[in-house]
Amino acid sequence: MADPNNRPPGAPRPPAVVLLSGGMDSAVVLAEARALGFVPHALSFRYGQRHAVELDAAARIAVAGGAAAHLVVGLELGALGGSSLTADQPVPKDRTRAEIGQKVPSTYVPARNTVFLSVALGWAEVLGARDLFCGVNAIDTSGYPDCRPEFLAAFEALAQVATAADPRGTPYRVHAPLLELDKAAIVRRATELGVDLALSHTCYDPVVAAGATRPLACGRCDACTLRLEGFARAGLVDGAPYVADAPRPDRKP
Amino acid sequence: MADPNNRPPGAPRPPAVVLLSGGMDSAVVLAEARALGFVPHALSFRYGQRHAVELDAAARIAVAGGAAAHLVVGLELGALGGSSLTADQPVPKDRTRAEIGQKVPSTYVPARNTVFLSVALGWAEVLGARDLFCGVNAIDTSGYPDCRPEFLAAFEALAQVATAADPRGTPYRVHAPLLELDKAAIVRRATELGVDLALSHTCYDPVVAAGATRPLACGRCDACTLRLEGFARAGLVDGAPYVADAPRPDRKP
Repeated sequence: MADPNNRPPGAPRPPAVVLLSGGMDSAVVLAEARALGFVPHALSFRYGQRHAVELDAAARIAVAGGAAAHLVVGLELGALGGSSLTADQPVPKDRTRAEIGQKVPSTYVPARNTVFLSVALGWAEVLGARDLFCGVNAIDTSGYPDCRPEFLAAFEALAQVATAADPRGTPYRVHAPLLELDKAAIVRRATELGVDLALSHTCYDPVVAAGATRPLACGRCDACTLRLEGFARAGLVDGAPYVADAPRPDRKP
Repeated sequence: MADPNNRPPGAPRPPAVVLLSGGMDSAVVLAEARALGFVPHALSFRYGQRHAVELDAAARIAVAGGAAAHLVVGLELGALGGSSLTADQPVPKDRTRAEIGQKVPSTYVPARNTVFLSVALGWAEVLGARDLFCGVNAIDTSGYPDCRPEFLAAFEALAQVATAADPRGTPYRVHAPLLELDKAAIVRRATELGVDLALSHTCYDPVVAAGATRPLACGRCDACTLRLEGFARAGLVDGAPYVADAPRPDRKP
């Protein structure tokens, strides 16, 4: 691993590419990359999400998190079909914590993280970066296959042979600093790093309400359920806007 | 490997995803997939190429090659910079066969094959396919790092852990039937399989000429040089259209 904190005096901070979805996890990852001494370059995708709300959140987070650049790459993953996040299928609602993660849900976008990391690798090569950061998480994953440690290890192995970078140089590294953290720990880590999670957007099914400055989270899809439980278990209240009748376990005494 | 020729009597032919650039190699690969007993699903990308000519060629080849579907996925790889194929840099010309392949050329698109195979993997997952076909080639590669056997092996390893497909089922396989063939052998193989290579487009710098039904190949970029030498060594004449003053080693006695 390139350790930017062990670099010679006066050496510039190395660049790193950070996948930035606009959700709370990626906001924390961006802050982790910066705290580790990298110059973060944020990468987001316009990939046929039904809601571009998360790209607005990514832009807010990139600015607040001190990204040196924020690149949004268009990618028509929706053309492949197969996901309720990109196709006209209903998003599951009101599933309990026990039901979430039992099997791969309909919100899974086929090979999404593989594609996103591949584009990140391409940008890293252009930037001369050897470090990629992503917010994948093996604890509260919603059951996505491409959020597992063995997936990250396989991608890291691929990266070493996939680019024109000198194989004798620093190896590529895929950092997943949230891999072993549950949502409560991520909320606490955000507080430690000074990340304002209210800037982030998590909901799979947001509601555009008259007079609101940004869409409101539903509070009932899998992503909202995991997020709100994380705040509740961390003993903190989520500052992001929700619909009025959303269940708010984070506000319970 | 799933061997479609050993399937039970009456079993349907399995689907496969074939990366189809519109060049001669991918035209042969599509025919190989069909000859092996797969139902080919052709996948092309609109990725910021300076010329969309190759997408027209891909569409012709998909029809002629009996693809069950042809999907063109938009992907703004040009936003990453770093390649003369997607940026406003000159394409190298008149390099000898010895100069081509000495180092990674400016036409290299960072992590292109990694990204393309990743999207192919996503489509394969949706289709229930376990077989991906690509036209990469370790002999006449122009020196691209993501055309090497170790790259393909690493991607195959990644695929096994990257999707929601049952890990106890048939493993994913990345087929690169041209890997060990030089261009002359590819031209000969096309003839054996009945592939009309005149439908394909290879040139990095085509010329739109008045009255021509399709753009003319320059005959002098690395891709044209390799293609024409392949035809010459196979003892065949290329039926694709070239500019009038193109060097034509395939026409020499």
